[in-house]
Amino acid sequence: MESFSDGVIAVAITLLVLGVTVPQPGGSLAHELGIRWPEYAAYVVSFMTIGIIWINHHAMISRLGEADHTVLILNLLLLMSIGILPFATELMARYLRESHGQTLAAAVYSGSLLVMSVFFGVLNRHIMLVKPSLLSEEVAPERRRQIFSRAVTGLLPYAIATALAPVSPYLTLGICAAVAVFYTRPVASGTESRS
Amino acid sequence: MESFSDGVIAVAITLLVLGVTVPQPGGSLAHELGIRWPEYAAYVVSFMTIGIIWINHHAMISRLGEADHTVLILNLLLLMSIGILPFATELMARYLRESHGQTLAAAVYSGSLLVMSVFFGVLNRHIMLVKPSLLSEEVAPERRRQIFSRAVTGLLPYAIATALAPVSPYLTLGICAAVAVFYTRPVASGTESRS
Amino acid sequence: MESFSDGVIAVAITLLVLGVTVPQPGGSLAHELGIRWPEYAAYVVSFMTIGIIWINHHAMISRLGEADHTVLILNLLLLMSIGILPFATELMARYLRESHGQTLAAAVYSGSLLVMSVFFGVLNRHIMLVKPSLLSEEVAPERRRQIFSRAVTGLLPYAIATALAPVSPYLTLGICAAVAVFYTRPVASGTESRS
Amino acid sequence: MESFSDGVIAVAITLLVLGVTVPQPGGSLAHELGIRWPEYAAYVVSFMTIGIIWINHHAMISRLGEADHTVLILNLLLLMSIGILPFATELMARYLRESHGQTLAAAVYSGSLLVMSVFFGVLNRHIMLVKPSLLSEEVAPERRRQIFSRAVTGLLPYAIATALAPVSPYLTLGICAAVAVFYTRPVASGTESRS
Repeated sequence: MESFSDGVIAVAITLLVLGVTVPQPGGSLAHELGIRWPEYAAYVVSFMTIGIIWINHHAMISRLGEADHTVLILNLLLLMSIGILPFATELMARYLRESHGQTLAAAVYSGSLLVMSVFFGVLNRHIMLVKPSLLSEEVAPERRRQIFSRAVTGLLPYAIATALAPVSPYLTLGICAAVAVFYTRPVASGTESRS
Repeated sequence: MESFSDGVIAVAITLLVLGVTVPQPGGSLAHELGIRWPEYAAYVVSFMTIGIIWINHHAMISRLGEADHTVLILNLLLLMSIGILPFATELMARYLRESHGQTLAAAVYSGSLLVMSVFFGVLNRHIMLVKPSLLSEEVAPERRRQIFSRAVTGLLPYAIATALAPVSPYLTLGICAAVAVFYTRPVASGTESRS
Repeated sequence: MESFSDGVIAVAITLLVLGVTVPQPGGSLAHELGIRWPEYAAYVVSFMTIGIIWINHHAMISRLGEADHTVLILNLLLLMSIGILPFATELMARYLRESHGQTLAAAVYSGSLLVMSVFFGVLNRHIMLVKPSLLSEEVAPERRRQIFSRAVTGLLPYAIATALAPVSPYLTLGICAAVAVFYTRPVASGTESRS
Repeated sequence: MESFSDGVIAVAITLLVLGVTVPQPGGSLAHELGIRWPEYAAYVVSFMTIGIIWINHHAMISRLGEADHTVLILNLLLLMSIGILPFATELMARYLRESHGQTLAAAVYSGSLLVMSVFFGVLNRHIMLVKPSLLSEEVAPERRRQIFSRAVTGLLPYAIATALAPVSPYLTLGICAAVAVFYTRPVASGTESRS
C-alpha cells in the first residue's frame, strides 16, 4: 500500500508543474512571466502542502502492521483528494487576479485542502482510535489520542481560509501558505520525530 | 513486476485529473464549474474503480511465488487496459451532456472497464486455474475456483452497463458507480481478507 | 537504480494515453473516433513495445550485483530514448493518414525504437561482454554472448522498418507491431526464463 | 523517503517529453521538425542533468541512516526545484530562437538549475557538515568536506551560465550542456564510486 500511495502522491505533486504555463511568444516575456506570479505562488504552496502530507502519511502508514479493508478504502479516498489538487491549484492560480470568480476559485482551493485534511483525519482516527490493533506495536491510549489531535489541527485553518475567501482570495492563499510554513519550521531537537 | 505495475496504475489514476478542466475566465465561474459535473463524477468513479482494481491486483500478485512469461504478458495487457482509462473517462465526461455521441461515449467508457475486467479475469484464471504452481504457497482447488469466481463478478455489471448505454448514458455511469460503491462497502469482519 | 528506471518506464508507458485524443463535440462521434484508429494502433504497439523493453530491462538489471558509472550513464541514455517515445508515437499517429509527412513521421517512430534498441544493446554489451564482474553471479562466456546476441535481435527489424518508411508508413508500423507480437508469443515451457 | 524522491524525479524527468511538440499537419514536416531543434536539445540537456542529479541524490540518501525533519524539508525543497524543470525547459526551448525574450528565458533556465544546485548543496551540507550523526556509518571529517565540495561544484558553471545569458542564450544552453557532459564522462576506474 505504501509504494502505491507514494507513487500517487509523487505523480500528483509533480503534475503541479503543468499549471505553470509558458507564455506565447510575441509580447514582453518579463511582463508575461510577471503577471503569472499566482501560478508560481500556487505551485510553491501546493508542492509544500502535498509534500508535508506525504511526510505525515508516510509516518502514519509506517506504524501499521497490517491494513484492513477500511484502511485501504479510506486511503484511496485520501489519495483521491490529493489527486485533485493539481486541478484546484490551477483553478485558483488562473482566477486569483480575475475580477470575476476569484472568490469561488479560492474557496475551491482551500476547500480541497480541507477535504484532504478531513480524509487524513478520518484515516488517522480509524488507525489510532477505532482499530489500534492494526498498529505494528502497541501505543498507549493517551499517546494515540495525542497523535490523532495533531493530525486534525490542519482542519481549522483550512476551514477559516475557506470561510474568508469572500473577504479576500489573497488572504485565503496566505493562510494556506502559512499552514505549510508552520509545518516546515525547524522542530526543537528534543521533540524530533523519527519519521 | 509488482513495483512496475504499481507505478503504471499510480500514474494512470493520477492522470485522471487532467480530465477535470479549468474554465476560461470570462463567464460566471459558478455556472462554468456547475456544468462540468460529469467531469467530477467521472473522476470519482474512475479513481475508485482503478483504486479497487489496484487493491485486487495487489492481492493477486502478492500470492505469486514466481511469474512466467504468460503472467508478464497478461499483466501488460491488463495494464494497457488500465492505462487507456484516462482517455475513456475524459471521453465519457465530455459527451455525457451532449445531444450527439453520448451513447457511444458511455458505451466506450463501460466497454473499457469491461475489457479491463476481462484481462483481470484471464490473468486470474491463468494463476488460479491453469498454473497454480506459480503460487507461493499451495491453495486448495475449491478455494482457487472461489477466488477466480469472485475475480470475474465485475464482468456482468460492466456488460450490462455497456448494453444499456443506448437506453441512457446516465444509467451506464450509474451502474459503473454502483460497482465501485459495492466493492468499497465495509466487509463483515469475519470474512476480512488480509490484503 | 531499478526503482528509478521502473518509475521512468512506468511514467513513459502511461503518458502514451495523452496521444489518444478526445474529439471536439459537434460532428459524428463514431466517425471522429473511427478516423483516429492510428492513435489506438500506435498506443497498443508502443505500450506493448515499452512493456517488453521493461521485461527485458528488468531481467538484465536483476542480474547485476553492482552498477559502475558507465552502467548508470548508459542506463540514463536508454531511459532518455524510452522517455521520448510518447512524442514519437503521437507524431506517427497524427501523420499516418496525412498526405504529407507520413513517411518522415513513420521513420522517426521506428528510428526512435531503433535508437532505443541500440542503447539497450550497448548497455547489455557493457554488462555481458565488457564488465561481467558486475554480475551478481558468474555466467559462462558462451551464455553471456548468447544473452547479448538475443538483446540485439531487435535492431535488424527496426532498421528494416525505418528503411521501408518511404515504401509505406503502414508497413513500418506493421513491422514494429510484428516485433511486439513476436516477443509476446508464448515461450516453450522448457526454455522459460525465471524473470 | 528514497522511494518518494525517486518517484518525483522519475515523473519530472519523463514529463520533459511534453515540451517536445508535434507539429500541426499542413506544412512541410521536415521543416517543422527542423525548426524545433531547441526542444530536442533542451530535452537531452535537461534529461541528462536531472538524471545526474538523481544519481548524486541517490548516492547521498543511501549514506543516511535516518532522516530528521530538516532533511525531509530540505529534500522537499530540492524536489520542488527539480519539479519545476519541465516548465523552465519548455520556456527556454520555445524562446531560444525568438528575437524577444530569449535572454530572459535562458536566464530562467540556467537560474532554475542554479537554484536546484543550491538546494542540493544545502541538503548535502546539512548531512555532511551540520549533522553527520545522521549518516549510517561514520565518515572522516576531511572526507565529508571533500564530498560537500564536490556537491557544490555545479554552482559556479550555472551561475556563469546565468550571468552570460545577455551575451548569448546559446552560450547559456551550451554551458548547461557542458556540465551534463562533464558529469557523464567515464570515471577513471581507480576512483569509481560504488553508487
